[in-house]
Amino acid sequence: MGRTSNAREKILTAAESLIGQRGYSALGTAEICKVAGVPKGSFYYFFETKEALALAVLDEHWETQSADWSRVLRGGGEPLQRLRQLFEETEAGQRAGQQSCGTVSGCLFGNLTLELSNQTEAVRSRLQGIFDAQVDMVEEVVAEAAERGEIAIGDPREAARSVVAQLEGQVLFAKLYNDPQRLDVLWRNCLAILGARLPA
Amino acid sequence: MGRTSNAREKILTAAESLIGQRGYSALGTAEICKVAGVPKGSFYYFFETKEALALAVLDEHWETQSADWSRVLRGGGEPLQRLRQLFEETEAGQRAGQQSCGTVSGCLFGNLTLELSNQTEAVRSRLQGIFDAQVDMVEEVVAEAAERGEIAIGDPREAARSVVAQLEGQVLFAKLYNDPQRLDVLWRNCLAILGARLPA
Repeated sequence: MGRTSNAREKILTAAESLIGQRGYSALGTAEICKVAGVPKGSFYYFFETKEALALAVLDEHWETQSADWSRVLRGGGEPLQRLRQLFEETEAGQRAGQQSCGTVSGCLFGNLTLELSNQTEAVRSRLQGIFDAQVDMVEEVVAEAAERGEIAIGDPREAARSVVAQLEGQVLFAKLYNDPQRLDVLWRNCLAILGARLPA
Repeated sequence: MGRTSNAREKILTAAESLIGQRGYSALGTAEICKVAGVPKGSFYYFFETKEALALAVLDEHWETQSADWSRVLRGGGEPLQRLRQLFEETEAGQRAGQQSCGTVSGCLFGNLTLELSNQTEAVRSRLQGIFDAQVDMVEEVVAEAAERGEIAIGDPREAARSVVAQLEGQVLFAKLYNDPQRLDVLWRNCLAILGARLPA
């Protein structure tokens, strides 16, 4: 029991890392098992299909990331400062990834959205749920800042979506130019999109 | 001579369409030749590697798109209205794609950035050149609007990058939610990022 759940975990960890580096389609289950250090035959014992693995990787990655987002965005402090902290932690995370593997790996959810959402409806639906949850969390903060009169927005949900879209767009460029510093502008752009006063 | 260049063109057209639908890694050269209606063996007569094909597809796609961008952004009219027209044409293009194949296919350059930029330096470099050229064109318009006192920005290049990043981020969501209307907010967000007066 201990051994089998450990093998599943090893497959998931290897898959998350490999998908982050090379995407989903380029990978075979044999390679994933080799990197995971588990017998090749064990893959289909844990995952019915390669798509099932992709869904499990998304869930696992979101479990970790949502805890981080929740800690930052639902933590104490001024609402806009919590958004700032989210951007700073995102940049620090991309920088750490670059230092460990040489290249900015970007956002796993953004990567798989562009690679897979038109190919599998199950993956599209899971990614929609994850991005909806991200927008939910940002929207809470945006609504709080609006209530305090710190920003001037129309629809808080649309504003939250635009903040997340700016984040995904800048992470795309951080990956393309292999430069986490591209994310420096997130805070300023977020304030602009939310109609807040620009920092001095 | 006529026949061979025609076959190359058919391979390129098929590859562009297939890559737009399913990405690059998921495709084999045999499938591309089948869709193109050319003999399987002819692929390597025209393209030394599959990567060479990807580069040719990028060049072909950018040749078309850069003509559109140039027509709109370097055309007559108020500078900010030219940006607005770019967003409207982008939305119309994604809507037309959705009507013809059922799903919003997104931006080929954004798709391949997230799928491939960490796997092949040649593709990364080509995509950097394309996005640099997009930013160049937006920067010209931004600088013109700034000169006319219509917007308040610091660095015009950084502002132009953020406009293109917002575009890529919103196109990502238009693809994920299969909804071109997601692009409606581009104009408002662009004005906000550029520190222009929001439309009434």
